[in-house]
Amino acid sequence: MSQLITLTTDFGLQDHYVSAMKAVMLGIAPSARFVDISHEIPPQDIMAGAWVVRNTAFLYPPNTVHLVVVDPGVGTPRHPVALKVKDQYFVGPDNGIFSLFFNEYDYKAYKLNNSNFWREGVSNTFHGRDIFAPVAAHISNGVALEDIGEPIEELVTYHWAVPIADKDGLQGWVVHIDRFGNLITNISKELIDDHLKRKSVKIYVGNTMLNKIVTTFGDVEEGEPAAFIGSSGMLEIGINKGNASRMLSVDKGAQISIVLQK
Amino acid sequence: MSQLITLTTDFGLQDHYVSAMKAVMLGIAPSARFVDISHEIPPQDIMAGAWVVRNTAFLYPPNTVHLVVVDPGVGTPRHPVALKVKDQYFVGPDNGIFSLFFNEYDYKAYKLNNSNFWREGVSNTFHGRDIFAPVAAHISNGVALEDIGEPIEELVTYHWAVPIADKDGLQGWVVHIDRFGNLITNISKELIDDHLKRKSVKIYVGNTMLNKIVTTFGDVEEGEPAAFIGSSGMLEIGINKGNASRMLSVDKGAQISIVLQK
Amino acid sequence: MSQLITLTTDFGLQDHYVSAMKAVMLGIAPSARFVDISHEIPPQDIMAGAWVVRNTAFLYPPNTVHLVVVDPGVGTPRHPVALKVKDQYFVGPDNGIFSLFFNEYDYKAYKLNNSNFWREGVSNTFHGRDIFAPVAAHISNGVALEDIGEPIEELVTYHWAVPIADKDGLQGWVVHIDRFGNLITNISKELIDDHLKRKSVKIYVGNTMLNKIVTTFGDVEEGEPAAFIGSSGMLEIGINKGNASRMLSVDKGAQISIVLQK
Repeated sequence: MSQLITLTTDFGLQDHYVSAMKAVMLGIAPSARFVDISHEIPPQDIMAGAWVVRNTAFLYPPNTVHLVVVDPGVGTPRHPVALKVKDQYFVGPDNGIFSLFFNEYDYKAYKLNNSNFWREGVSNTFHGRDIFAPVAAHISNGVALEDIGEPIEELVTYHWAVPIADKDGLQGWVVHIDRFGNLITNISKELIDDHLKRKSVKIYVGNTMLNKIVTTFGDVEEGEPAAFIGSSGMLEIGINKGNASRMLSVDKGAQISIVLQK
Repeated sequence: MSQLITLTTDFGLQDHYVSAMKAVMLGIAPSARFVDISHEIPPQDIMAGAWVVRNTAFLYPPNTVHLVVVDPGVGTPRHPVALKVKDQYFVGPDNGIFSLFFNEYDYKAYKLNNSNFWREGVSNTFHGRDIFAPVAAHISNGVALEDIGEPIEELVTYHWAVPIADKDGLQGWVVHIDRFGNLITNISKELIDDHLKRKSVKIYVGNTMLNKIVTTFGDVEEGEPAAFIGSSGMLEIGINKGNASRMLSVDKGAQISIVLQK
Repeated sequence: MSQLITLTTDFGLQDHYVSAMKAVMLGIAPSARFVDISHEIPPQDIMAGAWVVRNTAFLYPPNTVHLVVVDPGVGTPRHPVALKVKDQYFVGPDNGIFSLFFNEYDYKAYKLNNSNFWREGVSNTFHGRDIFAPVAAHISNGVALEDIGEPIEELVTYHWAVPIADKDGLQGWVVHIDRFGNLITNISKELIDDHLKRKSVKIYVGNTMLNKIVTTFGDVEEGEPAAFIGSSGMLEIGINKGNASRMLSVDKGAQISIVLQK
């Protein structure tokens, strides 16, 4: 069976850092195959990394190993950890980067404290190369998590602000802006279905007001804004063939209100 | 035989979109090998995507599948299609993205309307993940195009503006600017050979005038502009170790004139 | 045994250039596996490419082929060459791109002048696709360097400015700034150990003064600057969770002084 290892980092691709991790892994797991999820997570932006991993990891074949290195806190008491969640493995720092699927799934987690699975001569600054990558390669080779280190009961868990649902409607926030400028919110399809029950609404974001939630971009004219359930299952505001973030002057963190109409 | 699938999109690499397509394909075609052609096509820039695909697809080994997702027009009547052109397969929207090789090669095209080859639970917004990627993986597995959907006779075809050839010379346009700032025009080597017949010329672009078409950069001094036939077979204007677009203040769409000298 | 080929270029990923090289290599070495080291070397920045290659190439398994195309000088007398250094192969222009490991390792080098291993119909501008890539694929297939072309005794060798060591301390320069804004200098761990012998120092860079060399980021508060030995074995100045280049207004080429305290 093929050994898949994905990589998600804030390293960018202009330096040698990603390559160094792959080289080390190929030395341990020569037939490993890599998929780069993203190396353009903004530096130290744990929640941006968590969002990307949450949206893609569980689409992979069973036993894929996901190496995630964002803000590992080298030199701090932060633990490097490995997790099994459903049929997927994850390796990364215990800094909240895996938080976004703890609501949905159980996990088993282990500290990476067995140095037999580290690279010899661990540096003081590049644990991606020296600890995380070799451990990911060993897990891909079939080493059991129990051998990697000791169990850890509770991991650092960040939560997004929870949307507010009351008799007037829903209030949430923009949690991610994608390459196209789509505004992705923390308001899920389930919350909309449960709380709004297909009643008539108005949606306010920045200085813009929309009159309904449509099915897809194609339901509005080019250049017009649309509110719809995006591919990650969350409410998004986008502009058909345009950049909503720029054209509506809305940034990450902005408030979005869905107001029930009487 | 190895299964090669290339990817060309306007998705960028900061989001999870490219990874989601790869994960879905690996579930269907576990031994598929991916080559990323580019994910930095400017958003919705169909002709930029067409140019990249045209310059590289036919260099691949036979039976390579090229997944091309730029401006798929989800929610519009635009069809997702699969093509066979020479010994290569292509999967993408029928929006003109494959236009640039229709002058040179015949094609057979099919709509992707057999939902057996789609992902279960198709979203309203991400057909890359839910239709295009799974169909590409099935084609890579050997599924015949005839099984993917019904034939489509004529595809959307865009043409670049055709250069004007008259007794004074040639007039064309800058159709692409590459990373180095080279100005790539729609004037082909063949047109230059046929129409100018190696006569003496002057070349005008922006406020710059060049006295001849040289063989390569190395024929001019560092910092000097040169007109030459580039690797894609088109006339290019570049600056030896410099950025012609910036240094000559010339953008995509600019006119270029080659004037025959008496 | 698997055939690994890495790629390092200044081509960027918006154009078809990298894909064209991979397509050509797959035609020659169908089971070759690619690792992209970086395609974001700044255009024609030979030393930036040399730095990236130096920091990662020797981490790869034996017989990996490293294809490095930065500023190949097409149309100039610059030779394309192939090298064996330790258990790694390198293919690229003889322009100094391999200089940074000539101090540490012996090399055997050959000109790529046997056109049997080139692509048919070599262009005047894209030797990456037409010469370097096919030769790299043939070497990966096991073709001996002796068959690729004739030996070349001495390669172009660039040196970084050598740090100055005197009774007052050390003076060096910032030779690379990474994605995180860390300032990487030409002052090696060995030089520091030998010359400063753990005596008390002050470190001056830009308008900033630091009182000691620490072990890692975690030794200073968030937002504070730190001097430490980085993962490439050189002195670095970074800011814990910040961008030192921006926050200290220091660019590549800046001077850094380590002054021994009496």
